[in-house]
Amino acid sequence: MGFGPVIDELIDALRVLPGVGQKSAQRMTLHLLERNRSGAQRLAFALEAAAEKIGHCHSCQNLSEQDICSMCQDTARDMDTICIVESPSDLMAIEQSHHFNGRYFVLKGSLSPLDGRGPNEIGIPKLVSRVNESGIKEIILATNPTIEGEATAHYIAELLGSNECLITRLAHGLSMGSELGYVDGGTLNHAFSGRKPVLNNE
Amino acid sequence: MGFGPVIDELIDALRVLPGVGQKSAQRMTLHLLERNRSGAQRLAFALEAAAEKIGHCHSCQNLSEQDICSMCQDTARDMDTICIVESPSDLMAIEQSHHFNGRYFVLKGSLSPLDGRGPNEIGIPKLVSRVNESGIKEIILATNPTIEGEATAHYIAELLGSNECLITRLAHGLSMGSELGYVDGGTLNHAFSGRKPVLNNE
Repeated sequence: MGFGPVIDELIDALRVLPGVGQKSAQRMTLHLLERNRSGAQRLAFALEAAAEKIGHCHSCQNLSEQDICSMCQDTARDMDTICIVESPSDLMAIEQSHHFNGRYFVLKGSLSPLDGRGPNEIGIPKLVSRVNESGIKEIILATNPTIEGEATAHYIAELLGSNECLITRLAHGLSMGSELGYVDGGTLNHAFSGRKPVLNNE
Repeated sequence: MGFGPVIDELIDALRVLPGVGQKSAQRMTLHLLERNRSGAQRLAFALEAAAEKIGHCHSCQNLSEQDICSMCQDTARDMDTICIVESPSDLMAIEQSHHFNGRYFVLKGSLSPLDGRGPNEIGIPKLVSRVNESGIKEIILATNPTIEGEATAHYIAELLGSNECLITRLAHGLSMGSELGYVDGGTLNHAFSGRKPVLNNE
């Protein structure tokens, strides 16, 4: 390259970011060095701080700086409802929709025995003890609508079915803004079988 | 967000990268924290090292760790030819095409008086002294084929015209792999006026 080892190493290191290939990494490197050195330093500190300080919440397994994350500590949240998701990014998406105000439990992925992810690997025992300890009234299964996600939801529902709390699953159906002509058959089937009467506002 | 200040700061800091918005920054943050902490640390060190150590070559103005960059020191390169580009990324593109083996001079952009970039701002005086000092035989103007790039090339050609060296400009014409039906008029005009006889292999 002729730019020397320091720049080459930065280009290489940027490729750890998802979606960043050789060309984007070069463009980012030159942008930072030519136009935004303070931004590069800020990013370096932020990365170091995050890699060092961020662990998992002991209660919900979400990424957190503290032993118990701020969402688990927040008394303004509904203590009776727990929403089970597959990953912190799913939690983030739900939080950004501002609809749900209960607690979460973040699994470490979905059940996938072929990939070596059984109940212990994704943290099911912790979920069970969490549900048994606290007086939860509703468990919302918000795993992904994929084969693994469905299997995980089913497994958890079976496992916790003896508890007295209500176990629900997020509704399947048409996405907002989608066009019927482009919707896949599985989704249409779900939309038909889950259809609701219109006039009684349910 | 509920992820705490350390994660929020990392998401914000990642947005200094060109082409990275809020959603990509979130995805990068969660990817690094969940799957690649060592990659995050490596990136932090690389950024810090680069922001600290990288300056500009005193001879060609390219980004460099040393006072004189490795390309300017490399005696295997052709001393007689100098290629003038607008930015380090242009130099990188030329280097990656493995055709040119002379020296470079990297301007700090193109002339654009309305944006406050005159000859002094982009380093023309340094270019003039560099050309006068060394026995350069050919100056290749490789500024971009834009209005500013053409103006910059024209300005440099006028300025250095009294020297005895040859001054050339990169050829304008059709891009490899392009389709005539989609080529713009300006490029077609250049391709016609720069047409070459076929049989004498020139």
